[in-house]
Amino acid sequence: MSLAELQRRIENGDLSADTAIAQSLEAIAAQDKTIGAFVCHRIAAHAPSAGPLRGIAVGIKDIIDTANFSTEMGSPIYRGFHPRADAPVVAMLKQAGATIIGKTTTTAFAANDPTATLNPHNHAHTPGGSSSGSAAAVGAGMVPLALGTQTGGSVIRPASFCGAAAIKPSYRLLPTVGVKCFSWSLDTVGLFAAGVEDLACGLSAITGRTELLLPPSVAAPRIGVVTQDFAGEVEKASVEALQMAARAAERSGASVRALALPPIFADAWRIHTTVQQFEAHQALAWEYRERYAEMAPLLRGRLDESRDIPPAEYDEAQAIAVQARAALDPIFREVDVLLTYSAPGTPPKGLDSTGDPRLNRLWTLMGTPCVNVPTLTAEGNLPVGVQVIAPYGSDAKALAAARFVEQALKR
Amino acid sequence: MSLAELQRRIENGDLSADTAIAQSLEAIAAQDKTIGAFVCHRIAAHAPSAGPLRGIAVGIKDIIDTANFSTEMGSPIYRGFHPRADAPVVAMLKQAGATIIGKTTTTAFAANDPTATLNPHNHAHTPGGSSSGSAAAVGAGMVPLALGTQTGGSVIRPASFCGAAAIKPSYRLLPTVGVKCFSWSLDTVGLFAAGVEDLACGLSAITGRTELLLPPSVAAPRIGVVTQDFAGEVEKASVEALQMAARAAERSGASVRALALPPIFADAWRIHTTVQQFEAHQALAWEYRERYAEMAPLLRGRLDESRDIPPAEYDEAQAIAVQARAALDPIFREVDVLLTYSAPGTPPKGLDSTGDPRLNRLWTLMGTPCVNVPTLTAEGNLPVGVQVIAPYGSDAKALAAARFVEQALKR
Repeated sequence: MSLAELQRRIENGDLSADTAIAQSLEAIAAQDKTIGAFVCHRIAAHAPSAGPLRGIAVGIKDIIDTANFSTEMGSPIYRGFHPRADAPVVAMLKQAGATIIGKTTTTAFAANDPTATLNPHNHAHTPGGSSSGSAAAVGAGMVPLALGTQTGGSVIRPASFCGAAAIKPSYRLLPTVGVKCFSWSLDTVGLFAAGVEDLACGLSAITGRTELLLPPSVAAPRIGVVTQDFAGEVEKASVEALQMAARAAERSGASVRALALPPIFADAWRIHTTVQQFEAHQALAWEYRERYAEMAPLLRGRLDESRDIPPAEYDEAQAIAVQARAALDPIFREVDVLLTYSAPGTPPKGLDSTGDPRLNRLWTLMGTPCVNVPTLTAEGNLPVGVQVIAPYGSDAKALAAARFVEQALKR
Repeated sequence: MSLAELQRRIENGDLSADTAIAQSLEAIAAQDKTIGAFVCHRIAAHAPSAGPLRGIAVGIKDIIDTANFSTEMGSPIYRGFHPRADAPVVAMLKQAGATIIGKTTTTAFAANDPTATLNPHNHAHTPGGSSSGSAAAVGAGMVPLALGTQTGGSVIRPASFCGAAAIKPSYRLLPTVGVKCFSWSLDTVGLFAAGVEDLACGLSAITGRTELLLPPSVAAPRIGVVTQDFAGEVEKASVEALQMAARAAERSGASVRALALPPIFADAWRIHTTVQQFEAHQALAWEYRERYAEMAPLLRGRLDESRDIPPAEYDEAQAIAVQARAALDPIFREVDVLLTYSAPGTPPKGLDSTGDPRLNRLWTLMGTPCVNVPTLTAEGNLPVGVQVIAPYGSDAKALAAARFVEQALKR
């Protein structure tokens, strides 16, 4: 279900906005009893008459405040909680004409405890997390657009697992106001959609930034391929996906070369967890202090393990992050974008883990735009993607290069 | 009512923590019917038995989430709104043993529409805003500590008007999570207390950063005096306060010299409003879109005037802010701290304005720690302060230099 295609048909008068919404509602009715991507959703809705996203049904991760739906953070601690206002990103979606169709499942407080959501391509596997429901809803074709958030790898990884395109934009392009915070330095709102053009149309409409729309033809980018060896080994399927994407881009005219990242990036990768856990102890201080018994076990365990990180250790971690961000400048003079793994492999079997964010952490810490491009389908109908990374603030460049890779893969 | 003095007496066993809380409750009962600093407050409370802030009653600005009090944002739109959780800063205060005694008045959404709160030193004058209640409650001696927030000049200015010490710390030293956002780039949580030592004790206890405590004796700082001529003229009382503070510091051994800020700072001062209003339109998108009629008139008018700031203008403003922050580096090699006006003069008469933040804006945009030091009492019993500004991340240096100025003024 392509957002861009729906937009074109609605604009041409070939499809009414209400019919487009009804199609999403039907797809949800048909599939969600099995997939479990939604916490709650509307059963009927009329589209607004104007706005670039009229007729577009959007799923919102359930850690993002909504005035018209409860916002339960994936936790019994927030059962029945009704925020007064929509989060800014939700209000911006509405302003652009979108219809908020429901709230999608999230691991508790966007951490690691899996939801009951199934991978739409193979029900025996995880859809990933923490934005489980948004990735699954888009991967299943229930909605053309969904919002998630990423602190470690909670947008790009589930997108890879569910065969969805996704963008984690530059820090602060989308406000995180009204989003339940895990780590205020790292939390980034992201978009899931069927393809890269759909992401560009969605992000442009939400932000009012027309420069994010794809140009009619995308110039061949200079691509640096990085394997993030500091993050450990990856499965054969991910190695194949990265090679396939790199070769396809090269065949289509891109300049492609392998890049070794300087040692500061291994340090930055390592200290991501320090930043995340130090801030999580403050962000979730009330829940941890007052509602300990009701906290999800994996999250609680990680908070237990990371108590009492000294402020000096956090300050040092933030200083390393600043250094690593500066060290990206010379790299991005040599290449336009980086190409790397989106996940260590295919979605793991079973629902006891949402997979590992180790290939995403560094890029969340860098604040750079990352786009997942679905790349191949491995045995068991399991999707694998790659991620395209551009400099901070160059979200248009990230989208254009991701589009280039996506089109090269189709040739 | 000095926090540090209460701490000493409680630690020495000269005062029980419960008695200290009871004293605050009595002061509130005696004064707040007239002053109107509190939206709501407890009428009885027991102090926890441990923590550096046991026995310290704290007032919390009513845009900061509290699990045990409603949080109404100074607006009928949020009447009766109960957040589920405490904001992290509130949880951190409790963790340090503080007793949250009540919620203090705020202009609607921390903008410009005055509350009914009176200046404790002259009831015919404004206490300033937007943190009106926190400044007035501390200025009146009702509580030894209160939290406010600053987007333009909402901590330092009301502190100056109410004769309170206050610190607006470096960006991100205190999380703004759970604080109703006006502008996510600018919003900063700050502290009000009777004197500079009290601020240091409070900020250290909240953050667990012992390096913020004042050293037994403070070295004489190198002080650069800046007049911010780009921000317009100031009243005679503010000129006198700045001269008095500079001369006192010099007499006590500080090196003091006048500094002219390079032109980039005038640009940065000018574009603060662009950053603030662009973000406010997103942060308050739901309220503006869905509850327009109930919005406070001054805020609504400013939002009306600032509609449709193009993203490119905002991006340019943020780029200017980055340049200006870098331009502080050479200045802070020449001097340890800057000394400048906290406000354009004494608190204005009447309650139809909270005064002008034009001398604070630049420093909020810079993200640097600023400390208000009460300096003189002008005719009509009206307080005037000066502010001490240190480099980003050097909150301990800001506090130490402010303490030096405070002690110099007492000599």
